[in-house]
Amino acid sequence: MSRILLIGASGTIGQAVHANLAARHSVVTAGRSSGDHRADLSQPDSLEQLLAQVGKVDAIVCTAGNLHFGPLASMTAAQFNLGLQDKLLGQVQLALLAQHTLADGGSITLTSGILAVEPIRNGANATAVNAAIEAFVAAAAIELPRGLRINAVSPTILTESVPAYGPFFPGFDTVPADRVARAYQRSVEGGQTGRVYRVQ
Amino acid sequence: MSRILLIGASGTIGQAVHANLAARHSVVTAGRSSGDHRADLSQPDSLEQLLAQVGKVDAIVCTAGNLHFGPLASMTAAQFNLGLQDKLLGQVQLALLAQHTLADGGSITLTSGILAVEPIRNGANATAVNAAIEAFVAAAAIELPRGLRINAVSPTILTESVPAYGPFFPGFDTVPADRVARAYQRSVEGGQTGRVYRVQ
Repeated sequence: MSRILLIGASGTIGQAVHANLAARHSVVTAGRSSGDHRADLSQPDSLEQLLAQVGKVDAIVCTAGNLHFGPLASMTAAQFNLGLQDKLLGQVQLALLAQHTLADGGSITLTSGILAVEPIRNGANATAVNAAIEAFVAAAAIELPRGLRINAVSPTILTESVPAYGPFFPGFDTVPADRVARAYQRSVEGGQTGRVYRVQ
Repeated sequence: MSRILLIGASGTIGQAVHANLAARHSVVTAGRSSGDHRADLSQPDSLEQLLAQVGKVDAIVCTAGNLHFGPLASMTAAQFNLGLQDKLLGQVQLALLAQHTLADGGSITLTSGILAVEPIRNGANATAVNAAIEAFVAAAAIELPRGLRINAVSPTILTESVPAYGPFFPGFDTVPADRVARAYQRSVEGGQTGRVYRVQ
């Protein structure tokens, strides 16, 4: 049994990851407005405080992160920067901090998404941010010390999200959240590093 | 003969691109401290002012952009953000502005780099930023109006840069800047969009 910090535990993916991991591990949850601890990826000091409060864990899983969606024609640099500062830099900062606080052999699992490799209309920010997360994971893996590992899970649109977002993903296969959660389990309990687990 | 704006014209790649394109086109140059106009990718209003000064062009080529290089072990989120704000968001903002000012059928050519797909030590920021640029190009291409095109050129380490940076790229092939410049020519004078031209 490992001790695992799950950030974004109240989201659709986060709930499924919690259900999966809590069956075998001690899971500490964090979120912007719920969970055992408060954390906001877009706030510079938030993650540092979170890791200090939580103390030593064997794995950190992040299923949080906001992006900007909207037409390229009206997109501004400031809007594009929202996704850079939240889902991208927030998760990168989490990894940069976690390399110093994780137990030896511990793991970091971040979340990207199918738009990294399959652009859709209104999705330029999501495509860039998700691709950057996947690339960061590949690069960070070769420098992490103490047997630490880092991976990303890249889900397609969730079956549970079709009512809200389905029209933006024409013809895309969907996957149920519990199947996506098994990719996080593979990252946490498996031995790979620098991997993107695509659940698509 | 087209009218082309080249940002970063004084760099090693920029000089080679200028030599290539100026043989057949009218090239307006811009840079942080030299060229026909001043422009700094990291300054929010700089690119908007530049495009207003330059007026209508048929192509915009950017060979500028700063990144953070350094060990993951001591990297901070603020350092990582330098590359996000400069080489990534600067080039994205250039494309977002250019979609409104380019002549019909015009093109935008950005610069990524081999680290997008081949991580090296100290290069986590470069890998993430370059991958995000390549992904943004793929996503933006499907939304651009008026026959506008967008591509990226992804060079490996330049032969001319080996004295300064060679030790960071162990065993990498190198390419001379004039060969890299031909990839920019392909992007500007060819018909493709959403492409990454890898010169590696």
